[in-house]
Amino acid sequence: MNSQFKHIGIVTRPQTPRIQETLHLLVDFLCGQQLDIYLDEASIDDGSAASEDWQRCHITTKENLGKKCDLVIVLGGDGTFLSVARKIAPYRVPMIGVNQGHLGFLTQVPREHMVHGLGGMLTGKYLPEERILLETSLIRDGQPMPPSLALNDVVVSRGGAGQMIEFEVFINGEFVYTQRSDGLIVSTPTGSTAYSLAAGGPILQASLRAFTLVPICPQSMTNRPIAVADTCEIEILVTKSGDARVHFDGQSFTDIHNFDRILIHRYRHPLRVLHPADYQYYKTLRQKLHWGEQLV
Amino acid sequence: MNSQFKHIGIVTRPQTPRIQETLHLLVDFLCGQQLDIYLDEASIDDGSAASEDWQRCHITTKENLGKKCDLVIVLGGDGTFLSVARKIAPYRVPMIGVNQGHLGFLTQVPREHMVHGLGGMLTGKYLPEERILLETSLIRDGQPMPPSLALNDVVVSRGGAGQMIEFEVFINGEFVYTQRSDGLIVSTPTGSTAYSLAAGGPILQASLRAFTLVPICPQSMTNRPIAVADTCEIEILVTKSGDARVHFDGQSFTDIHNFDRILIHRYRHPLRVLHPADYQYYKTLRQKLHWGEQLV
Amino acid sequence: MNSQFKHIGIVTRPQTPRIQETLHLLVDFLCGQQLDIYLDEASIDDGSAASEDWQRCHITTKENLGKKCDLVIVLGGDGTFLSVARKIAPYRVPMIGVNQGHLGFLTQVPREHMVHGLGGMLTGKYLPEERILLETSLIRDGQPMPPSLALNDVVVSRGGAGQMIEFEVFINGEFVYTQRSDGLIVSTPTGSTAYSLAAGGPILQASLRAFTLVPICPQSMTNRPIAVADTCEIEILVTKSGDARVHFDGQSFTDIHNFDRILIHRYRHPLRVLHPADYQYYKTLRQKLHWGEQLV
Amino acid sequence: MNSQFKHIGIVTRPQTPRIQETLHLLVDFLCGQQLDIYLDEASIDDGSAASEDWQRCHITTKENLGKKCDLVIVLGGDGTFLSVARKIAPYRVPMIGVNQGHLGFLTQVPREHMVHGLGGMLTGKYLPEERILLETSLIRDGQPMPPSLALNDVVVSRGGAGQMIEFEVFINGEFVYTQRSDGLIVSTPTGSTAYSLAAGGPILQASLRAFTLVPICPQSMTNRPIAVADTCEIEILVTKSGDARVHFDGQSFTDIHNFDRILIHRYRHPLRVLHPADYQYYKTLRQKLHWGEQLV
Repeated sequence: MNSQFKHIGIVTRPQTPRIQETLHLLVDFLCGQQLDIYLDEASIDDGSAASEDWQRCHITTKENLGKKCDLVIVLGGDGTFLSVARKIAPYRVPMIGVNQGHLGFLTQVPREHMVHGLGGMLTGKYLPEERILLETSLIRDGQPMPPSLALNDVVVSRGGAGQMIEFEVFINGEFVYTQRSDGLIVSTPTGSTAYSLAAGGPILQASLRAFTLVPICPQSMTNRPIAVADTCEIEILVTKSGDARVHFDGQSFTDIHNFDRILIHRYRHPLRVLHPADYQYYKTLRQKLHWGEQLV
Repeated sequence: MNSQFKHIGIVTRPQTPRIQETLHLLVDFLCGQQLDIYLDEASIDDGSAASEDWQRCHITTKENLGKKCDLVIVLGGDGTFLSVARKIAPYRVPMIGVNQGHLGFLTQVPREHMVHGLGGMLTGKYLPEERILLETSLIRDGQPMPPSLALNDVVVSRGGAGQMIEFEVFINGEFVYTQRSDGLIVSTPTGSTAYSLAAGGPILQASLRAFTLVPICPQSMTNRPIAVADTCEIEILVTKSGDARVHFDGQSFTDIHNFDRILIHRYRHPLRVLHPADYQYYKTLRQKLHWGEQLV
Repeated sequence: MNSQFKHIGIVTRPQTPRIQETLHLLVDFLCGQQLDIYLDEASIDDGSAASEDWQRCHITTKENLGKKCDLVIVLGGDGTFLSVARKIAPYRVPMIGVNQGHLGFLTQVPREHMVHGLGGMLTGKYLPEERILLETSLIRDGQPMPPSLALNDVVVSRGGAGQMIEFEVFINGEFVYTQRSDGLIVSTPTGSTAYSLAAGGPILQASLRAFTLVPICPQSMTNRPIAVADTCEIEILVTKSGDARVHFDGQSFTDIHNFDRILIHRYRHPLRVLHPADYQYYKTLRQKLHWGEQLV
Repeated sequence: MNSQFKHIGIVTRPQTPRIQETLHLLVDFLCGQQLDIYLDEASIDDGSAASEDWQRCHITTKENLGKKCDLVIVLGGDGTFLSVARKIAPYRVPMIGVNQGHLGFLTQVPREHMVHGLGGMLTGKYLPEERILLETSLIRDGQPMPPSLALNDVVVSRGGAGQMIEFEVFINGEFVYTQRSDGLIVSTPTGSTAYSLAAGGPILQASLRAFTLVPICPQSMTNRPIAVADTCEIEILVTKSGDARVHFDGQSFTDIHNFDRILIHRYRHPLRVLHPADYQYYKTLRQKLHWGEQLV
């Protein structure tokens, strides 16, 4: 096989049921192709740490995967893919997602066809797609905190006390509105089929260069989702934070204080996702969203 | 004045701006009518504790107000009214709400016409309205915890971790659905214009004998608000609680554990609210919800 | 078989595919039980008009079915059931719906178990349910037009010109709001899972004594669905009708003129629907609404 | 005054109350600046046809305005502006809207400051904005009908019979979904605050290069608004049309037959709208949508 990619990173979540079996299968296949394999050290479960298979790989950190690889394969669901994407995105390495039985928006290669599917993709039979990410900086007392990435969404959200929060929104420095609500979702097209959809947001075509701002249970009935160009800088000034937090892809978060300013813009590098050659975006939407079901 | 009510309780929140002034005015007026006054001990701010006015009143607890009074007057907004209602409801004492400038759904007497307005109402010029309350029992490991009342809503809701919760809903013992969401609102007609409305729930006419179950950001798009008769027993079995809590009127809460069963039904006594004689329910809705505003 | 019902009416839509076969089967079964059968004259298709089976029945009008029968069986979908229900309701005859393959909200007996299912139901093994209907009177130039019934909904709706209409709504004579929209749905609990749901209305438990008023694409974002007790008299005064119409169950309609007053209230007789003994209301909701589907 | 524009077209609706007065004022002002004025012949009411003022103008058709002018001023509301924009757009002439008392999204110059406001704008003190339009071709029996433009929206919609319609949607030739509903709105950012908003669609920032597809009362609860890049070709294949029509800006329409194919894409020329120099997009949104109103 004439692989376009020579240095392949592999990441998974060791807790995923039966994932080690898939992992061995994949390592075996890639080694057989004489490819250089980098295995995320956190992806191996303790029981199999001494496996011979791993001796054929470089065992290293996710950051090193980003530095060394020209392709990263994620074994798992969309949640696992998201968590890897945030770490890999700065290194501009394309990613492939292999699902473990349930079709994902981002993990399109089914495990049962993994070897055959990846075989074709490595030789160039894939559909590349660029997905935008959000970069968020939190400014506290005038000082910026280290920025965070998100592929799905940045969610400013009330905490467990159950009290609505209050904030002001600015786009490119222009005041947009004051809002009292459970929170605000800033979503990419990738995130538009996730939490944003549950909160009543619109679906954004995956390739659309836009974000949405979707209020969560706003007290005012006139606050509606709004979509803006992905060149916009969004600022959220939290005026009554309670126990609010800002969440990144629902997987990590930072506590918010009163008068924190949350700055959100498109990350300078998009994420390159490789899909199988027969990938159809709207078909995935139909399958995942159960379109076509009617109240007959 | 020939007052229908002889023993009048008064409650307020001492932090409300300029409330002590209103309180003195009210005590003065009621004393002038030779009425027997019970003043909530938590309603007096420290600075005025020694006021002569208070010596003309019985200073006591809210529970005692419930036991001794035949009318309780609340000075404050709807939030204050709710917190008093939950404590007074078991004693079946009618309540009047005096707002502090902003018309409330429950606090219809404006402060600026308080003396004149209450004067009429004490002699019988009022519109009585019965509002249902919810009684909630949480069953943990088979043991019921002490029940809680709510006049607006019982909200089972995710906490600060930002993870959706999962639960099963039963109505009168019949399985209704499994849900994965930010939570579920069980609302009275009184609560239907509060948090429930923000979550997309319908308005229930104040006198309708019904509850609504309104999902908060449900993952499934087919979960919609449902209204059921107030004779229904609602059970929520929490199967994946995370850091979920159950909130009563958004003012008090209890932590939820996995497999807690939350039983909700109509409280045996409705709350009797007295409105001014010129009260118009739909007029209040129009004013509070800004009906009639159009995108001209 | 000891049937509780002696005079059985049968109605179907002759255009329904393969319905004549079902009809013969049903007539055969009921004749075999020595029951007196009334067959709706419009339900027989032309080709089979001379069938011997029909000679064993009284062939007559739907109105006569209402007068003579103590049970009416509808073969077909919910749409057919609705159209029959509006005609039969004044005669207070219970109805059973036999679906033709797709479970209906009202047609719960599946064709493939028709004989067995009806056999049990005739001997008393059924769950009776009362469903409220709406009665609508249109007042034009002070004159009432003949009233119309609806089991699902009364819909005041713009016509083909595509212009929004304007109207005022009153409940029990009290002004509620002015609205500019594509129309307004007044729905029973039965109709709450039909067009009302598509327009964003809540589900009303089948037995709830309530109607909903659900705006269709209202220009003002603050107009929300509202549920009111079924004892309410609803008045819609159309101030800018364009080519509006009022529709009954989406199956018949009347043109509306400017300043027509549309009066809607609960019809004095509820409709009695008999369900199979194992009927479960929420199970039907789950099946019809695809509850339980999640974005895995 | 050193006007950037020499040949100014003027259009209004003669029925607009007191509009002739504004029209005279405007003609007077522009003549005083030695500008060449083209007056839409349909904008003059019969009573004033002989006015001396008009003798200082070229009286001609809207199409000629497009050909001869380098600026067109519309006096009236957004509705009037839309109707002119569809006619003027092919000629790529910038437009200014002067409202008659109510601020419009497109008609930002208030009548009471018309002379002063336009004075500045003619000399270059304006904010230009490009708005995309939709071009629609209806293909019947394989033959294309003449294309139509829309600045707000193209709406495929059921007619007066009240029956839902059925259609299939394709984007860039890829099948998206089958839908049963009252219709479908394809909206520009300009239209996203109009009918689309009433149907539950998101707001699109005016400059976003995107359309939305917003279902109107879809029978399936999983059909949600979707936003796509404005480079997409949208095809709607109507499979059950009933008495459906396709509407352009809600101001003109064409009847639809079964199996008509409706092709919608971005019109090749955007519309250039000139706003006053102090124009703020989000301020207009706040004012028009009543943002900031809360349920206090």
